[in-house]
Amino acid sequence: MDNFKYSIPTEIYFGKGSIEGVGEEVCKFSKKVLLVFGSDRIKRSGLFDKISELLKLSGIELFELGGVKPNPRVDGVREGIGICRENSIGFILAIGGGSVIDCAKAIAAGVQYQGDVWDFFVKKAVITSALPIGAVLTLAATGSEMNGNSVITNLETQQKLAVGNPLLRPKFSVLDPEYTYSVPPEQTAAGTVDIMSHIFEQYFSPTPDTYLQDRLAEALLKTCIEFGPFAMKNRNDYNARANLLWAGTLALNGIIGLGKNGDWATHGIEHAVSAVSDMTHGVGLAILTPAWMKTVLDNKNVEKFVNLARNVWGVGDDGDDMIIAQKGIDETSKFFASLGMPLKLSEAGIEKRLLPVIADKATEFGTQGSFKVLNRDAVLKLLELAF
Amino acid sequence: MDNFKYSIPTEIYFGKGSIEGVGEEVCKFSKKVLLVFGSDRIKRSGLFDKISELLKLSGIELFELGGVKPNPRVDGVREGIGICRENSIGFILAIGGGSVIDCAKAIAAGVQYQGDVWDFFVKKAVITSALPIGAVLTLAATGSEMNGNSVITNLETQQKLAVGNPLLRPKFSVLDPEYTYSVPPEQTAAGTVDIMSHIFEQYFSPTPDTYLQDRLAEALLKTCIEFGPFAMKNRNDYNARANLLWAGTLALNGIIGLGKNGDWATHGIEHAVSAVSDMTHGVGLAILTPAWMKTVLDNKNVEKFVNLARNVWGVGDDGDDMIIAQKGIDETSKFFASLGMPLKLSEAGIEKRLLPVIADKATEFGTQGSFKVLNRDAVLKLLELAF
Repeated sequence: MDNFKYSIPTEIYFGKGSIEGVGEEVCKFSKKVLLVFGSDRIKRSGLFDKISELLKLSGIELFELGGVKPNPRVDGVREGIGICRENSIGFILAIGGGSVIDCAKAIAAGVQYQGDVWDFFVKKAVITSALPIGAVLTLAATGSEMNGNSVITNLETQQKLAVGNPLLRPKFSVLDPEYTYSVPPEQTAAGTVDIMSHIFEQYFSPTPDTYLQDRLAEALLKTCIEFGPFAMKNRNDYNARANLLWAGTLALNGIIGLGKNGDWATHGIEHAVSAVSDMTHGVGLAILTPAWMKTVLDNKNVEKFVNLARNVWGVGDDGDDMIIAQKGIDETSKFFASLGMPLKLSEAGIEKRLLPVIADKATEFGTQGSFKVLNRDAVLKLLELAF
Repeated sequence: MDNFKYSIPTEIYFGKGSIEGVGEEVCKFSKKVLLVFGSDRIKRSGLFDKISELLKLSGIELFELGGVKPNPRVDGVREGIGICRENSIGFILAIGGGSVIDCAKAIAAGVQYQGDVWDFFVKKAVITSALPIGAVLTLAATGSEMNGNSVITNLETQQKLAVGNPLLRPKFSVLDPEYTYSVPPEQTAAGTVDIMSHIFEQYFSPTPDTYLQDRLAEALLKTCIEFGPFAMKNRNDYNARANLLWAGTLALNGIIGLGKNGDWATHGIEHAVSAVSDMTHGVGLAILTPAWMKTVLDNKNVEKFVNLARNVWGVGDDGDDMIIAQKGIDETSKFFASLGMPLKLSEAGIEKRLLPVIADKATEFGTQGSFKVLNRDAVLKLLELAF
């Protein structure tokens, strides 16, 4: 186990009705707030009006940045920065899923920076200050509500890049499982895959002796497997939505990755895929994850795959470790298929000629992964396996 | 799942050598520090000198309160309060295990309170301010290093009582697994039982639909079972000590108990036992836990016991749920015995005539437990079963 430093200062308000204190929370920071949101779902459901009303009751002046898309664009971030500067806004409240929260974080980072916000993503600059932000989560997937990470897409340069900084951690996040009732089955499925992928990225680590972290990761994986399909069929099941929502947060608030390196190759490659195709993040991950597993599995790391097979998928047979490991990978594929995910890049509309482009893009800043290091050729082979 | 509010602002420094930043951390709060510690173990090991030196290098003035005993006494707390007041001390650093940290918390709570600190424990007063504290942990067991709880014993009134308040959460805690190398096998065993009991108290909950929390609890239980006995035999095994140390923190920093009620009857009864006998906390818990399990198990709650048997102890047989559940309880007993724990109160030197006294004491503020509510007579029967 490696050394680590850890705290989670984000205040989580979890459960039905927990939005009620939002006005009081925001007032701790500013009376001028930018609301960042995406689709009309939160307007149709009445959530947007409800939150606006609560904030106005606390005497807060509201500004809006709507229309944030999945794979949020740097253009929107720049627009938000402009609104904040023009109106001396002191707090940003994201209402939505990961894209909306990530967009809010990038705005928060950019407001007090003289240069262009994209500098942070291409490592030309480091974030040294940020506006405080809060989040009202409407989708179980991201983990962004309790960490300092943001992933933004630049269509001009066809890049989808991440930045992480403790300054970007939300001051508070409201997690009401009822707000996820309106998430349609296909998005519930994609969210479930996203959560599982966050867990896999930390589970498959080159760091030895992380028994505790691995068992915690398996606990979260089992929760996704138990409640993902159930929530797809039973949209308004509070229990399923609650377990899934909290699993999404714990999967990426740092706790299961403490004291170990993550791999993150699958995410790195998926970011390259969705930079050129705008594919739904969870769909890309569902296709790439089994291909990644098959690519990296070998005799030296087979134990981790055996643990996955036995502890998560309940593969009970005796026999050769490599066969048990393969069964675990097959179960993972089958589960994603059962959620209605495509299993191949070709099924998801990616043209074969794009594979080298994606491989280039995925390795433009170096190799991918740490559980097993993948260079450009290895990434291309993985993509061909996933095609 | 119930609603909850959560954050963990305590900064954790985990791993070998992580003490190095202690001076800088303490300086954020005060240049006058009370060091609270217990046995001579930390003096013999050189840890005390090391920390003193680091603090002095940061220009910090040191005061000492040593000799804190297991089941820390309110007398020592009052002494510490006196030292803090006389010297205008602004920070308390606990170096030790749960008793030392709990003592430091009680001092922190009492310094700015006009009345007697015991008022907080008998609910005559509520904590409204506290000095900031930090902790350097030398024993895997308590969880006190990342929560706001303190348990103090009053020998005069023969009471061992708890208080909890977010103001008492350490600002930072240093967790270096190497500091636990010197913990002898019998204390390692008692610590392992203590951690497992903290988990059981939250696992056995009347709140339905807490799948995720239950799987996390099982992950921590498995870690204790894997590494407790191993660390007893291999005192200087970094990996075993690291997994155990972090499991102890996660078992009681709140995370596995979110959104559900805990039971805490076993702890409540054990506090009554050790108030009249000064028994080691972990020993008392090892004796009482299986008796508690046998007392509360019934057809309505058997599923939780079946989960324990199957998911934690690996009981694989098919058959009647009640039989599987019993096997899980038997495995728990056997495991505690394998750690060298006595299985009966009589073996641990408790006289039979004390059982009604303990039952009275355990229920002096009301019934015990929530998974199943135990009145005074039920507690007495449990004690007789454990005798």
